[in-house]
Amino acid sequence: MKRIKTGIPGMDEILHGGIPERNVVLLSGGPGTGKSIFSQQFLWNGLKMGEPGVYVAFEEHPVQVRQNMAGFGWDVREYEEKGLFAMVDAFTSGIGKSKEYEKYIVHDLTDVREFIDVLRQAVTDIGAKRVVVDSVTTLYINKPAMARSIVLQLKRVLAGLGCTSIFVSQISVGERGFGGPGVEHGVDGIIRLDLDEIDGELKRSLIVWKMRGTSHSMRRHPFDITDKGIRVHSDRVLKKKEEVVL
Amino acid sequence: MKRIKTGIPGMDEILHGGIPERNVVLLSGGPGTGKSIFSQQFLWNGLKMGEPGVYVAFEEHPVQVRQNMAGFGWDVREYEEKGLFAMVDAFTSGIGKSKEYEKYIVHDLTDVREFIDVLRQAVTDIGAKRVVVDSVTTLYINKPAMARSIVLQLKRVLAGLGCTSIFVSQISVGERGFGGPGVEHGVDGIIRLDLDEIDGELKRSLIVWKMRGTSHSMRRHPFDITDKGIRVHSDRVLKKKEEVVL
Amino acid sequence: MKRIKTGIPGMDEILHGGIPERNVVLLSGGPGTGKSIFSQQFLWNGLKMGEPGVYVAFEEHPVQVRQNMAGFGWDVREYEEKGLFAMVDAFTSGIGKSKEYEKYIVHDLTDVREFIDVLRQAVTDIGAKRVVVDSVTTLYINKPAMARSIVLQLKRVLAGLGCTSIFVSQISVGERGFGGPGVEHGVDGIIRLDLDEIDGELKRSLIVWKMRGTSHSMRRHPFDITDKGIRVHSDRVLKKKEEVVL
Amino acid sequence: MKRIKTGIPGMDEILHGGIPERNVVLLSGGPGTGKSIFSQQFLWNGLKMGEPGVYVAFEEHPVQVRQNMAGFGWDVREYEEKGLFAMVDAFTSGIGKSKEYEKYIVHDLTDVREFIDVLRQAVTDIGAKRVVVDSVTTLYINKPAMARSIVLQLKRVLAGLGCTSIFVSQISVGERGFGGPGVEHGVDGIIRLDLDEIDGELKRSLIVWKMRGTSHSMRRHPFDITDKGIRVHSDRVLKKKEEVVL
Amino acid sequence: MKRIKTGIPGMDEILHGGIPERNVVLLSGGPGTGKSIFSQQFLWNGLKMGEPGVYVAFEEHPVQVRQNMAGFGWDVREYEEKGLFAMVDAFTSGIGKSKEYEKYIVHDLTDVREFIDVLRQAVTDIGAKRVVVDSVTTLYINKPAMARSIVLQLKRVLAGLGCTSIFVSQISVGERGFGGPGVEHGVDGIIRLDLDEIDGELKRSLIVWKMRGTSHSMRRHPFDITDKGIRVHSDRVLKKKEEVVL
Amino acid sequence: MKRIKTGIPGMDEILHGGIPERNVVLLSGGPGTGKSIFSQQFLWNGLKMGEPGVYVAFEEHPVQVRQNMAGFGWDVREYEEKGLFAMVDAFTSGIGKSKEYEKYIVHDLTDVREFIDVLRQAVTDIGAKRVVVDSVTTLYINKPAMARSIVLQLKRVLAGLGCTSIFVSQISVGERGFGGPGVEHGVDGIIRLDLDEIDGELKRSLIVWKMRGTSHSMRRHPFDITDKGIRVHSDRVLKKKEEVVL
Repeated sequence: MKRIKTGIPGMDEILHGGIPERNVVLLSGGPGTGKSIFSQQFLWNGLKMGEPGVYVAFEEHPVQVRQNMAGFGWDVREYEEKGLFAMVDAFTSGIGKSKEYEKYIVHDLTDVREFIDVLRQAVTDIGAKRVVVDSVTTLYINKPAMARSIVLQLKRVLAGLGCTSIFVSQISVGERGFGGPGVEHGVDGIIRLDLDEIDGELKRSLIVWKMRGTSHSMRRHPFDITDKGIRVHSDRVLKKKEEVVL
Repeated sequence: MKRIKTGIPGMDEILHGGIPERNVVLLSGGPGTGKSIFSQQFLWNGLKMGEPGVYVAFEEHPVQVRQNMAGFGWDVREYEEKGLFAMVDAFTSGIGKSKEYEKYIVHDLTDVREFIDVLRQAVTDIGAKRVVVDSVTTLYINKPAMARSIVLQLKRVLAGLGCTSIFVSQISVGERGFGGPGVEHGVDGIIRLDLDEIDGELKRSLIVWKMRGTSHSMRRHPFDITDKGIRVHSDRVLKKKEEVVL
Repeated sequence: MKRIKTGIPGMDEILHGGIPERNVVLLSGGPGTGKSIFSQQFLWNGLKMGEPGVYVAFEEHPVQVRQNMAGFGWDVREYEEKGLFAMVDAFTSGIGKSKEYEKYIVHDLTDVREFIDVLRQAVTDIGAKRVVVDSVTTLYINKPAMARSIVLQLKRVLAGLGCTSIFVSQISVGERGFGGPGVEHGVDGIIRLDLDEIDGELKRSLIVWKMRGTSHSMRRHPFDITDKGIRVHSDRVLKKKEEVVL
Repeated sequence: MKRIKTGIPGMDEILHGGIPERNVVLLSGGPGTGKSIFSQQFLWNGLKMGEPGVYVAFEEHPVQVRQNMAGFGWDVREYEEKGLFAMVDAFTSGIGKSKEYEKYIVHDLTDVREFIDVLRQAVTDIGAKRVVVDSVTTLYINKPAMARSIVLQLKRVLAGLGCTSIFVSQISVGERGFGGPGVEHGVDGIIRLDLDEIDGELKRSLIVWKMRGTSHSMRRHPFDITDKGIRVHSDRVLKKKEEVVL
Repeated sequence: MKRIKTGIPGMDEILHGGIPERNVVLLSGGPGTGKSIFSQQFLWNGLKMGEPGVYVAFEEHPVQVRQNMAGFGWDVREYEEKGLFAMVDAFTSGIGKSKEYEKYIVHDLTDVREFIDVLRQAVTDIGAKRVVVDSVTTLYINKPAMARSIVLQLKRVLAGLGCTSIFVSQISVGERGFGGPGVEHGVDGIIRLDLDEIDGELKRSLIVWKMRGTSHSMRRHPFDITDKGIRVHSDRVLKKKEEVVL
Repeated sequence: MKRIKTGIPGMDEILHGGIPERNVVLLSGGPGTGKSIFSQQFLWNGLKMGEPGVYVAFEEHPVQVRQNMAGFGWDVREYEEKGLFAMVDAFTSGIGKSKEYEKYIVHDLTDVREFIDVLRQAVTDIGAKRVVVDSVTTLYINKPAMARSIVLQLKRVLAGLGCTSIFVSQISVGERGFGGPGVEHGVDGIIRLDLDEIDGELKRSLIVWKMRGTSHSMRRHPFDITDKGIRVHSDRVLKKKEEVVL
């Protein structure tokens, strides 16, 4: 089985070598946990390893996403020009100047079919090996009963195209699940990012809850966000003893 | 009373010999707990013992299910060719190439009657003794008020055909029940698989909550998932002292 | 005041002699707690004491119920032939072969009036002193606002006919109540069966929460299910110190 | 200020002399806590002190209520004959034989106006000083938004007629409130009856939560139910340290 | 900044001198916590200091309110005759005799505009400096989405008329908030009254949660209700260590 | 990257220099936590540093807001006259005298488009660098499904105009989140203000949960509200050990 290396320091050790190819991984966390940084770092490291990637921007303006990535030293523009990276604009609906600059635009965000068509085009055009959808939650935020079928559709398309994908899942602070039962059971892997207040201090940690096709660390590992991105401490374990907060 | 051996190491000891014939067992667990592996191992072991089996694939593409099973060394294709194993495709709706390869396809996933007809045909064709529905949750995910009657219908048909069945039930992380009161009370047995974070480490365990027609271990047993499948530690007990996490 | 002996070992001691005649008792418990076994044992013991009984089967096929009872050595068929025991089939709706074999069939399970008519006929025909409705929950599972009035109607009819009745109430795992406020307050007695995981082991216990017309043990008693049925330890007390599980 | 003595052993000490005249008291408790016994004892003691009383039977057949009371030695029939006690039948809707025997019948239980008319007639006919509505919950069980206005209407009528009243309020096991905010704030007094499992044993206790027009014990007192009725231990305090049960 | 003294013993110390003029204060508490007594005492003390006041009676008959106040020695009738106190009858809808005796009647309790007109008239007629609305909860009990705008409207009118106001807010036992987010954030101050069972005994305490325009005690203070009204212990602190009660 | 200094004592240390320019920060807290004071102090300090600002008043009358600010010594009127500060009146709907005095009025509070037009005009007219929306919660209080898209629209407009913004988010007492998942994930930063009762005393603290573009203190810091405004103790940490209160 081939593996896709995340290239995030410490993360591939935890995954016993990387994410099994074609897996769809739910990257689940509350606000401020580092989901976007994790997934952008995953894509950037792919570019450095010669694996083209697609980023679907639902939450931020594409221009802002590029700036955010550049802030970590991940300047994707040269890769875009070479046809090795593509941004799907699922934020502006093509309103404003973005339609002059963005090549892949989703015009009707409530139309899953249009979204999948645009995504498929971007993946095919650049021969993408890695895809990030940030966030998949937005696709069903106002129609939770559709969550399962939307995720399964996306998974079928992306696995069919040979991509290894990260679906960012936004959850609430203190929520125990990963984004709803239909979604959690439908994906191949789940990585959860946490930000917890322990004795008056915020602590970051992550845990791999499941990953089809590989064994993986069964422990909760602390991580940091630095100006170079995420660094996971694969050799350390965080034992959460949460306060009872209701 | 005849028993159907699961063949899963340690499991038949826990069941005091196996699952009583014709029982419908709810196999309940959160994401990543190993429900699909357990049920596939149950079917494969049946094939090795000469008991034909049917797997209903609601959550994964049938091709993917066969690959997943092969990854554990459970290659069902020769049994399919001999008419001893059948896959019911309740995933693709017959869209795409699957209609050329799959013999048993459910076209309208909202039509329980069609589903039962296809399932009955598959069971009859191969003389199945074992049936897995993975997952039964999907059948009523958007119509919970129908859960009880759907499960009872299925149970009546499968028991009538002489099958011993596992119904996979998807529950949320941290949920105490097994899939809703209508379902829990309607089945003959309940096996629950758990994945719990204890002191920063994920631990697997299972417990037989009920099993009509037999006594069984009343203890919670740890288990592992290896590259050979599930191995239950029938001689060990896991005492869960959950943290208070809200 | 006349009492109806349950005949279940240990149970009549707890009830200070038995259930006061004409009482309607809610037998409440989660899945796997032994509700059906308790109520079938109650009926069987009545037959042995010369008190005819009616069992209303909502959850299992009547044939299966008879088999389950026979598995404990309680073979009701001779009593049925003598007109001392009656099974009301509220499971098959008269579909399939049951209409050839079953004398009392409820055809439309949503029609409470039809159900009461069939039940009254069965009770009258055999001069029943004991009635079990397994489960009463099914009667209002999709119309909870009707629960109270349905239970009160049933109670009026059965008490009017001189019967002492057990209404099986299905509750969820971990639920504190007994089946909804309208129901709990409407019945004459409540017996709760519990199955709790304590230090990795399942423990059975029961408690009599209320019983009109008699004093009773105010303690929680452990019980076992053996191949002879239920045996209550009236001389032992179980102190539940539940873990905090959310 | 005049006080109405409950006559229940220990209770008037707790109330520092009795219930202030014309107060409407919510008697709130879960199933099996003794609400009906408390309120019937209150009425019976009134009869013995020369204060006529009315009992509104929503939960039990009037015949059954009289039998239950007689079981404690409280035979109201002679008082009914003398026109000192009245039963309002809000149970049978006048169906069956009750219309031949009962003088005060509420035919349409959903019609609050009819109920109030019948109640007012009964109160006026016998010059009632005490009224029990068992239970007031039934009046709004399927229309909670009406609870407040129904309770306020009743209170206005009964206080206007000079009665001191007990409104029985049915709550669920483990519920912290007394029957809904609209009700709790509308009444003049609240007495709560509890039945709690402590170390495997059921314990009875009550607490007076509020009582307009008088000071009262601020403590939780244990009580017993004997074959003579309720006996409150005004000199003892129960400290509930509930287990955490979820 | 001018302050309005509550005159309640201990309370003005806690408020560092009194309520800042024109503030609207939410007085929030469960049943039996003393909200009406607090607010009536606030009005009465105003009368004694020469500040006219208006009481809006939503929960009790105006006649009863006057009697309750008189029971504490607060006889408002002479002030009403002198035009220094006004009662707004928002209880009877003008049905019954009250229309002969009450000057300010709200006829349609669902018509907020009519209510505000009547209230404004009463305030203007007597030149009120203090207003109590007992309770404001009733205004939106069946339309919670309107709560915020109703409270803001009232606040605008009363502050515009130069009044300092107490809005009584009814909450449930054990509820942590003060009456809903729209309300809590809209008012200038929040005082919470509590009644808690601690070791089998009911204890009264209050805490000032916020008060615009002044510092205040940040502590929880015990208080008593005597036959003279409320007395707050500004020099004592109550540390609530609530039992875990679910 | 340019930073916008809050000027609040201790706060810029916690933010490692200030809020990154153009960030939209959610300022989240329960009633009485000091959200309005924090955001007004942020604007006032901007004025002193030569950065024009806009305050959107949804919760208070604009006249009252100016008075409240003046109470802390922050008299914005001279800045308004010089065209360096603008108040957007989203409170009165232009009813009453405000339409004579206020320059920027939102007439229809349910019309997000009108609101954005008025806000954009105010920002453009004075060249605002800082914007406060107090509160953003009001914009979607009765349409939670719209929260995410409203916040994203506002963010796009304000970031596009070069502003650094604070969106006040009103939450309930004891609520763990920051104002709903759609909102929490959409903003660039989250600062939470807390007011907690600890051992009978109210304690103020704040924590920066996330802030795009900068590292920041990961600790919970106590703060005070004095007559000069907020003062944060950047050198102290508050360890909250909340009582279990349900």
